[in-house]
Amino acid sequence: MDNVFEISLLLDFYGQMLTKRQYEILDLHYNNDYSLGEISEQLSISRQGVFDNLKRSKTILNNMENKLGLVSKFLDHKNKARDIQSILKSIDCNRLLAEDREKLVKIQEGIDDIIKGI
Amino acid sequence: MDNVFEISLLLDFYGQMLTKRQYEILDLHYNNDYSLGEISEQLSISRQGVFDNLKRSKTILNNMENKLGLVSKFLDHKNKARDIQSILKSIDCNRLLAEDREKLVKIQEGIDDIIKGI
Repeated sequence: MDNVFEISLLLDFYGQMLTKRQYEILDLHYNNDYSLGEISEQLSISRQGVFDNLKRSKTILNNMENKLGLVSKFLDHKNKARDIQSILKSIDCNRLLAEDREKLVKIQEGIDDIIKGI
Repeated sequence: MDNVFEISLLLDFYGQMLTKRQYEILDLHYNNDYSLGEISEQLSISRQGVFDNLKRSKTILNNMENKLGLVSKFLDHKNKARDIQSILKSIDCNRLLAEDREKLVKIQEGIDDIIKGI
């Protein structure tokens, strides 16, 4: 995984296994769109230092995902939950009994929670 | 986490971060119910060695869960999916249109997949 969205996801899942400094640099670059130069200035380390740090941290995160595969497992759940969400939306609730309509609303809420939790 | 079910879950999630030997010993003890003595005999290491290894490995797994919390996140999804499952089961499909009935079957399958995937 190497694009911004993917690195940001890996950081979200496995970031706590990095050092504070490693986390901080990835967070600035991938979640807050800081350039390497800006990070270098902000943290008073060389641009090369920032680059090396980013590279090492991404390797750690990618290795964790290669071994554990938990991000891909979660994304799989999210996709399944989204599929369910669109099936739910396609049901015309007006032709259901009030009781069943309420049940579908509860199911919808549960699915929304699963999607939000990822 | 310290009971058999919990250790087995942690092993399932984070086991690939252990060494092969650490994984093997935890797997024999927690998934295959081997006693420390039996593992000691099987792997030709002292009983104390098995004990120390188990203890160290459990600490590694618990530390990972304390930092990442992914087992608890997954279990939360599983509980939500089970709640949805029981709401689905409580809907009397006979009073639905065939079209809606089919949609509910698809939702049920998606939920089953999420539960099985954990």
